[in-house]
Amino acid sequence: MLELRLVQGSLLKKVLESIKDLVNDANFDCSATGFSLQAMDSSHVALVALLLRSEGFEHYRCDRNISMGMNLTNMSKMLKCAGNDDIITIKADDGSDTVTFMFESPTQDKISDFEMKLMDIDSEHLGIPEAEYHAIVKMPSSEFARICKDLSGIGDTVVISVTKEGVKFSTRGDIGTANIVCRQNTTVDKPEEATVIDMNEPVSLTFALRYMNSFTKATTLSNTVTISLSSELPVVVEYKIAEMGYIRFYLAPKIEEDEDETKPEV
Amino acid sequence: MLELRLVQGSLLKKVLESIKDLVNDANFDCSATGFSLQAMDSSHVALVALLLRSEGFEHYRCDRNISMGMNLTNMSKMLKCAGNDDIITIKADDGSDTVTFMFESPTQDKISDFEMKLMDIDSEHLGIPEAEYHAIVKMPSSEFARICKDLSGIGDTVVISVTKEGVKFSTRGDIGTANIVCRQNTTVDKPEEATVIDMNEPVSLTFALRYMNSFTKATTLSNTVTISLSSELPVVVEYKIAEMGYIRFYLAPKIEEDEDETKPEV
Amino acid sequence: MLELRLVQGSLLKKVLESIKDLVNDANFDCSATGFSLQAMDSSHVALVALLLRSEGFEHYRCDRNISMGMNLTNMSKMLKCAGNDDIITIKADDGSDTVTFMFESPTQDKISDFEMKLMDIDSEHLGIPEAEYHAIVKMPSSEFARICKDLSGIGDTVVISVTKEGVKFSTRGDIGTANIVCRQNTTVDKPEEATVIDMNEPVSLTFALRYMNSFTKATTLSNTVTISLSSELPVVVEYKIAEMGYIRFYLAPKIEEDEDETKPEV
Repeated sequence: MLELRLVQGSLLKKVLESIKDLVNDANFDCSATGFSLQAMDSSHVALVALLLRSEGFEHYRCDRNISMGMNLTNMSKMLKCAGNDDIITIKADDGSDTVTFMFESPTQDKISDFEMKLMDIDSEHLGIPEAEYHAIVKMPSSEFARICKDLSGIGDTVVISVTKEGVKFSTRGDIGTANIVCRQNTTVDKPEEATVIDMNEPVSLTFALRYMNSFTKATTLSNTVTISLSSELPVVVEYKIAEMGYIRFYLAPKIEEDEDETKPEV
Repeated sequence: MLELRLVQGSLLKKVLESIKDLVNDANFDCSATGFSLQAMDSSHVALVALLLRSEGFEHYRCDRNISMGMNLTNMSKMLKCAGNDDIITIKADDGSDTVTFMFESPTQDKISDFEMKLMDIDSEHLGIPEAEYHAIVKMPSSEFARICKDLSGIGDTVVISVTKEGVKFSTRGDIGTANIVCRQNTTVDKPEEATVIDMNEPVSLTFALRYMNSFTKATTLSNTVTISLSSELPVVVEYKIAEMGYIRFYLAPKIEEDEDETKPEV
Repeated sequence: MLELRLVQGSLLKKVLESIKDLVNDANFDCSATGFSLQAMDSSHVALVALLLRSEGFEHYRCDRNISMGMNLTNMSKMLKCAGNDDIITIKADDGSDTVTFMFESPTQDKISDFEMKLMDIDSEHLGIPEAEYHAIVKMPSSEFARICKDLSGIGDTVVISVTKEGVKFSTRGDIGTANIVCRQNTTVDKPEEATVIDMNEPVSLTFALRYMNSFTKATTLSNTVTISLSSELPVVVEYKIAEMGYIRFYLAPKIEEDEDETKPEV
């Protein structure tokens, strides 16, 4: 028996909107610790890891560990029917091949239950070791989203270069080149507006903008984003989910085929 | 000679937006009582009845009963040119094959007149007898619109079931099932937020969601909607037009081909 | 060496949005006087003239007159990456085949530079003589935009007729006819809401609505528009750019093939 009651149901709606375009089908894993998901995107390039800790739920009952395979498009269709102020409860009976989403309006005048068929999905759970990163950039999530969107109007890839002074996002395409520099800046009125750089050594890595843009769909979940970079590791783009957990996106850097920086990257 | 002056011209704009997708061509009937329309939708499944009473007009002159055939798409194109605060006057000379819509801006600085060709439309006027209904549900129109929209993401038909406690909207489709229950609720701050159920006997009827969704285009006309249900009659979905009349949509229930409720309806 | 620093960078963004759909490629001419452009639309029917005077820039350095050929779609893609509060600097080195747009956020935390390739564009600069017009209409730019949009739902051309009392915009199409009269009105609370007619002799001219609608993309640049009409000259539709200059659109009137006004224009 599984019953998870989330007062701030809009969080779950936002989580689905963040990942449904990247991942088609995925197993949600439920244990005493929390409700989590780990999935590769459909082209097996990027990895998503979601965690919603059990403490973040108003009520959390999970008698035994289960893994529920869901089609994220269908799940998103159902969650879209929840109001933004609704309480969402996820329910599943032991051995059942369905999951139920219950939505309660704040006034309790409207109660909806949506039952969805579960799927069998083959998936291997990758262990993601804790790692040391050369540089960690924390910045406003809306700023990062804007930069990825702007650069994708010019080119296909972004070079992210971190120095002590700031982080530079660069691209080049048929119509020209673009460089956007965000300076370290901690003297802001609101902490979520700060750009903070924690660097051990300078790093410069290239990524596909298409994926970066997809990750920024999680911007609604958090005011800030943390980008962890290391030359030997996939980048981690992390959005914290207030008091509950996180969504993390992992993406391997592109290998530069040509060291000559003056030539255009294709 | 016909001359109808409507100070709140935006009402007529909203009326057209409510019905133009459902009905292509229709006769507007003008008499001493008011300005009215009755028309089947293009697939002859749903019926629309509109009444704007003469008292609701600032000036209402209709020397003799006339019926004016109009293409609603074209009429809508013209009414879209009226500002939301404009006064609209409908004018037609006896025997003329055109109608004129005059728009006056509140400051009288801008006066527009749009002349549209009338059409000959065959139509039979159905007498709609006053009827007794098993159950009448009055609820916020935006809530009803939201429910119809949400359910159409899951299935094609909606089962509306009324009991003393509340009204249940259900659907099922390939991806699962959905039930939304709105409880009777009269202790609200604003009367238009109440859900009021007036029931003689329980009723459960099935309707095509496509039509229900089309009817909810009238949501802009009224804060509340009244749904009148009876097992032998078409449902009536009524939107009152403040101090002037109403738009009513009639739709016959779908006959269940299979009594076995566990089987999906196709 | 060219370096033009525009504190209100959003002006340049709006200028590009105003003309990029009308003109594909154009030469921007830079001299001690200012930054200007003159270009025919791609079908060689309408002419655009832009002037941004040097005094309007915070810093204006132009060592020698140069003409920079730009693809306006690409330029617009780059300028879209500037924030609305950003300072924009246009830079070009002598003899360089690129131009650089630099965007500085108000807090100076984010500095972007976009480099775009220049093009060789054949163009002849037309001398546009100062002319006397039969009638000059000054009216709210949003009102003019609304009228052009509304009429294009009915017909393809607009007849603009000016008398001392007001200006009339008329069209006719398959579904009927439309006439919109804006009366001269100078007793308004805000001067930008006035409709002022300066007339030497009545004039009535026909124009393609498609172009008029395109011109109204400049509505964001100014609260008012000035329409200068003369039977022997192209109409001038002018939007002033506050304290800097203007955008002017020129369009030749359509010749009426038939003097009989009762016949429809095709």
